[in-house]
Amino acid sequence: MPLPAPLTGVVPPVCTPLTASGRVDVDSLASLTEHLIDAGVDALFVLGSTGEAACLSDGRRSTVIETVVAAARGRLPVLAGAIDMATTRVLDHARTAQALGADGIVATAPFCTRTHPAEIADHYRRIRAAVDLPLFACNAPASVPTELPVDTVLELAADGVLDGVEDSSGNTGALRRLLVRLPTLDRPFSVLTGCELSVDGALLAGAHGIVPGLGNLDPAAYVRLYERARAGDWRAAAKEQDRLAALFALTDVGDERLMGRGSSALGALKAALHLLGVIGCPDTAPPQIPLDGAARDAVRRLLEEAELL
Amino acid sequence: MPLPAPLTGVVPPVCTPLTASGRVDVDSLASLTEHLIDAGVDALFVLGSTGEAACLSDGRRSTVIETVVAAARGRLPVLAGAIDMATTRVLDHARTAQALGADGIVATAPFCTRTHPAEIADHYRRIRAAVDLPLFACNAPASVPTELPVDTVLELAADGVLDGVEDSSGNTGALRRLLVRLPTLDRPFSVLTGCELSVDGALLAGAHGIVPGLGNLDPAAYVRLYERARAGDWRAAAKEQDRLAALFALTDVGDERLMGRGSSALGALKAALHLLGVIGCPDTAPPQIPLDGAARDAVRRLLEEAELL
Amino acid sequence: MPLPAPLTGVVPPVCTPLTASGRVDVDSLASLTEHLIDAGVDALFVLGSTGEAACLSDGRRSTVIETVVAAARGRLPVLAGAIDMATTRVLDHARTAQALGADGIVATAPFCTRTHPAEIADHYRRIRAAVDLPLFACNAPASVPTELPVDTVLELAADGVLDGVEDSSGNTGALRRLLVRLPTLDRPFSVLTGCELSVDGALLAGAHGIVPGLGNLDPAAYVRLYERARAGDWRAAAKEQDRLAALFALTDVGDERLMGRGSSALGALKAALHLLGVIGCPDTAPPQIPLDGAARDAVRRLLEEAELL
Amino acid sequence: MPLPAPLTGVVPPVCTPLTASGRVDVDSLASLTEHLIDAGVDALFVLGSTGEAACLSDGRRSTVIETVVAAARGRLPVLAGAIDMATTRVLDHARTAQALGADGIVATAPFCTRTHPAEIADHYRRIRAAVDLPLFACNAPASVPTELPVDTVLELAADGVLDGVEDSSGNTGALRRLLVRLPTLDRPFSVLTGCELSVDGALLAGAHGIVPGLGNLDPAAYVRLYERARAGDWRAAAKEQDRLAALFALTDVGDERLMGRGSSALGALKAALHLLGVIGCPDTAPPQIPLDGAARDAVRRLLEEAELL
Repeated sequence: MPLPAPLTGVVPPVCTPLTASGRVDVDSLASLTEHLIDAGVDALFVLGSTGEAACLSDGRRSTVIETVVAAARGRLPVLAGAIDMATTRVLDHARTAQALGADGIVATAPFCTRTHPAEIADHYRRIRAAVDLPLFACNAPASVPTELPVDTVLELAADGVLDGVEDSSGNTGALRRLLVRLPTLDRPFSVLTGCELSVDGALLAGAHGIVPGLGNLDPAAYVRLYERARAGDWRAAAKEQDRLAALFALTDVGDERLMGRGSSALGALKAALHLLGVIGCPDTAPPQIPLDGAARDAVRRLLEEAELL
Repeated sequence: MPLPAPLTGVVPPVCTPLTASGRVDVDSLASLTEHLIDAGVDALFVLGSTGEAACLSDGRRSTVIETVVAAARGRLPVLAGAIDMATTRVLDHARTAQALGADGIVATAPFCTRTHPAEIADHYRRIRAAVDLPLFACNAPASVPTELPVDTVLELAADGVLDGVEDSSGNTGALRRLLVRLPTLDRPFSVLTGCELSVDGALLAGAHGIVPGLGNLDPAAYVRLYERARAGDWRAAAKEQDRLAALFALTDVGDERLMGRGSSALGALKAALHLLGVIGCPDTAPPQIPLDGAARDAVRRLLEEAELL
Repeated sequence: MPLPAPLTGVVPPVCTPLTASGRVDVDSLASLTEHLIDAGVDALFVLGSTGEAACLSDGRRSTVIETVVAAARGRLPVLAGAIDMATTRVLDHARTAQALGADGIVATAPFCTRTHPAEIADHYRRIRAAVDLPLFACNAPASVPTELPVDTVLELAADGVLDGVEDSSGNTGALRRLLVRLPTLDRPFSVLTGCELSVDGALLAGAHGIVPGLGNLDPAAYVRLYERARAGDWRAAAKEQDRLAALFALTDVGDERLMGRGSSALGALKAALHLLGVIGCPDTAPPQIPLDGAARDAVRRLLEEAELL
Repeated sequence: MPLPAPLTGVVPPVCTPLTASGRVDVDSLASLTEHLIDAGVDALFVLGSTGEAACLSDGRRSTVIETVVAAARGRLPVLAGAIDMATTRVLDHARTAQALGADGIVATAPFCTRTHPAEIADHYRRIRAAVDLPLFACNAPASVPTELPVDTVLELAADGVLDGVEDSSGNTGALRRLLVRLPTLDRPFSVLTGCELSVDGALLAGAHGIVPGLGNLDPAAYVRLYERARAGDWRAAAKEQDRLAALFALTDVGDERLMGRGSSALGALKAALHLLGVIGCPDTAPPQIPLDGAARDAVRRLLEEAELL
């Protein structure tokens, strides 16, 4: 189905449930898809960093797209991440995603190389030329150290190369400077924030939508937050955001002497989805370190405090 | 005069006007002080990075405090930056600031050393023990690469060591996680944002005040932005912020092949204050590179577009 | 063929010649292989960052391994890079390399994730368990921002997980601290330096071999440097290194306003190989920016000064 | 006394012994000076990062210079660090050092600001114009995040602004590229390495001298290392370096959950000097965290293994 232009609303980066043996748990993934659609989200984004794309083989990435596209049954668009080191490899993922029915592509800038804005621009122009789907750039320096300059984004937006950007950089100054220049474009462009704890401020600044990892867990809360912001009830939006910021403490339950912050955050999200009965197994992909019992107990307590359990 | 607890509102980080020979231009500094007070700001913050503190000798730092304290005539509080590499040196600046009449201290965490949260905490505890003034930590990774962890800030707030924090980190997630935990404190604590292009969102999130470098130029706009936010008119606040985000383009007028972004931004602020007739000379301190004529023309055009000239 | 244990000597990271249409130029790659073997190198390392692995599709990566293994005809071992974001994907590359006849694997640590030493260790243990070939870790922070701690490397060496490490970190202190602890191991372990401008010092410190990108161009010089070091003629080794350090200026011929340092360095290496008649086309993979005529002229002059042309 | 041009040999960055109450322990500092001179070092460098300059007030910095100049009694030159955020402040330190009898200045590049090579060059030109002493730049990214580009160093060397550079960057490639271009200068220039675990390689590459923090503890070993290198006995030099690399393990004795790596390293150096009877008290300056008993025991064991105790 065609993407709205610009894309707006709540677009969760979908977790990838795995079985204990490490395969994609397609039943749980379908169940998670239903959980998100039930809550009223506007689109789904599979194979982002929350979806552990870095840890999934090409075959498993394909299974994820197929499963979510099938489970969505055309009720809302599905964007697929094309996350890889440079142009040719990103292109291969984008073409596969198109063939499997994705409705849009979210592509990383080149990394693993000392890059330059002219190279970033060339990269996206080549993807645009090869794949006939709406194209989003993602700016996520915690995962991919390449910075997307505002001027490059605007140039690519003006030329019809990019249809939007997903920004998790936390650089609110750069984001605002992008947003205030969008009216100079003569075509729609969508700015989605991945900073899930400052969604109210991003929407107030003019962002079109949100890509909240925590939205896997409580998508209805992000839908309420979005709707209250759209209705101009900013205080109520901020109150929803405050509640979600408190719940976000679950991403830190893993002992930092034993594991990275990625293992802790993704392990906690999946532990919570498992406790909520949405997915069948809380395992994350190797080499991530599993949460121990104390950490899982802490997740349970935070879910109870948030009245989700 | 005592600082309000918590400190709220618009607290511009005051530029330091210099003469052509590099001395503090005390008349221009008094004039800038008047320009800011006239606009209705709530407090002044001297000797921050916008005040070129890194480039000023101890003697000139003292002149800045004396001049602004005298010019303020008790009409509003004056905070002074105590910006140096580690505890003893920061303490010396803080004691001097107290002796010269400052109403509060904004102190950097230790830098130039591979530090640890326990050391940051010890640092602020020693300053608290030695100086009898409200104490703010500043978190400004563009200038000082030491990160202030949220847990450390909260521990120091709970113990009465810190009265507030000035945050320019752009880490909106960490800021929100701090803000939602403030109600657990049994004493006032002030969170001021230095991210001058997302003030509306920061205030919506619960920040108490703002430290906008661009506020030197158009303090009335930041006062309006703050007041509209406080009145709950978030759309009007966002509109003010948008206008200021467009004006912020002046910080990039300096050619990046010729100078650093600090030279460009501070040079543009001072060129604008000079064009507005607030200060007598647009020079920045060495080793910053002066703007050329084309850059100064660009500043003039942006001031005209913003209807400030 | 089995790898020597420990692997020693000159192990160039082989460039990947491409045709003008972007396919692997298998004739040129065979010719480059011959050029390197003729010079007396000890092993070949394909699909490293010098081989533009980040820019090559899986199919082209396979072509590279097949071509070089066939061209080498068992005269020396061929190591293959398994460069990808995390465990499963690295494993897929490693298995393919084994199936195609590679004699050893050089695998990156996980990246695109906020990782932890325990995760790095688990990652390599899983590769070790799945692939029956000598396994090298690579530590190349310019490409992959994950740091390999010395203690983790030693733990994995002691347990027989790793057979060696290729280090391009430039952290000579960490390297020396690793080297002085190798005698505590009861099995061979190979430390190869990728810092091609301090090979003499690395060999003096006890490194076993070298992985010089510049060795594509002048492999004989690196062989002489290695042999002189092994013979204890350190002054002569240093003199060879000095000559190569001067030649290395060619990596900077690309205008830094127009392209990244990767485009400049790889473009210059390939331009030089083309001028020397070793490869048929100097193109690099997209999104790298091609060198202009002035840059190619500068490469020619540096080759002439080095008496290679 | 005049500095040799170029300065060569062993130039330890002198620790600053403190009393339990935090003042400079002048007797211990004189004793440490004697300990170093006895071992045959070539010059002394006070107020570097090993000397805890970041933690010392201006008054204590002056006491350090006075004490060491007096204790040296003209037997060898004394260089003083002028470590501060930008030009004016560095200049004040440099002038004071000259007035107190220092024989040369080691000045940091500007930091706490987003700087540019043109600003770095201007900074050193202003210091050169104001202070009539040999001037060294220091490149120590662990303490000061400003990088000194090779081209800037060479330009300043050619113009007589800089007399040398102290490099602790670990960027051996950049260092070699600097060293091979020194013959194009028509005046002496001294390259000193602060990478104390790869001194043998740096000397082989052509460095003129060494600035080893560990040299406070075992200066005689660094003198032997230097002399063996100068005599062309590179194997013996490397063997000395290996022994020192093993001893360097003492810098990690402090528990990384409790303190930063600076606290661990400087605490261990001072604990060792105290155990050796060179200084009267092992305390470091706040906010550094003291070593606990287990860490001090580990220092003792390493001294015994190195046969220093």
